[in-house]
Amino acid sequence: MSTAQGASAAQPGGGAGWISRVRWNDAGLVAAIAQHATSGRVLMMAWMNREALERTVATRQAVYFSRSRARLWVKGEESGNIQTVREIRLDCDGDAVLLLVEQAGGVACHTGRESCFYSRLESEQWQIVDPVRVDPGRLYK
Amino acid sequence: MSTAQGASAAQPGGGAGWISRVRWNDAGLVAAIAQHATSGRVLMMAWMNREALERTVATRQAVYFSRSRARLWVKGEESGNIQTVREIRLDCDGDAVLLLVEQAGGVACHTGRESCFYSRLESEQWQIVDPVRVDPGRLYK
Repeated sequence: MSTAQGASAAQPGGGAGWISRVRWNDAGLVAAIAQHATSGRVLMMAWMNREALERTVATRQAVYFSRSRARLWVKGEESGNIQTVREIRLDCDGDAVLLLVEQAGGVACHTGRESCFYSRLESEQWQIVDPVRVDPGRLYK
Repeated sequence: MSTAQGASAAQPGGGAGWISRVRWNDAGLVAAIAQHATSGRVLMMAWMNREALERTVATRQAVYFSRSRARLWVKGEESGNIQTVREIRLDCDGDAVLLLVEQAGGVACHTGRESCFYSRLESEQWQIVDPVRVDPGRLYK
């Protein structure tokens, strides 16, 4: 199997050759969009380094890389609201992955909302248009 | 009007104060996800600088910033496959916007496919799982 854009080496054994198609940015990260597998709601965008993506594939639970904490971050490790990954897609230029997930607890956002995209631009202001489903104080002790 | 990321001033007049909520990265860009407004399909991820986002809001047509060409890029300027923006959302930490769009021509990807996310990870290989809808040679002269 031939893999990367730019890279020329074939990957005769297949195996982890898939990861060579990912185009990491200068910080070694790729953008990761999580979308609810059934409702289609876009839940969040975060970042993955190579280890995060490999762990996500291996465990089928979303693992991101926290830029603020500079460490791997198993989604839901504190709140319990893990993301079970049903499907992983890569875009045409390899710099974004799309995860189709089931969202435990129905809440992806640290604010206790379903999605992190809860603010909508209306009349030149960001209006919060989605309800808080779970008190964030119950998500993070 | 206060603009920069990190600014804390209130926005008494409203107006363009909305843009001060956007957290630009070191290159002055914010990630932008385009999602089909009715089907929910995630079509693409690209980047916007401040001018691209302002023009998108003003014209209701998606305008991105091409990192490779280092210039504004009106989506569909060559192919005709413009994106009409129905809704714009911002995520909780301000570093990603979500556009709900109608996609002219039914094709967002330069490969002639509906979505740029046409490769799915299966058995450790990226499998192309979406059809080409339009010959790319017809999109770009």
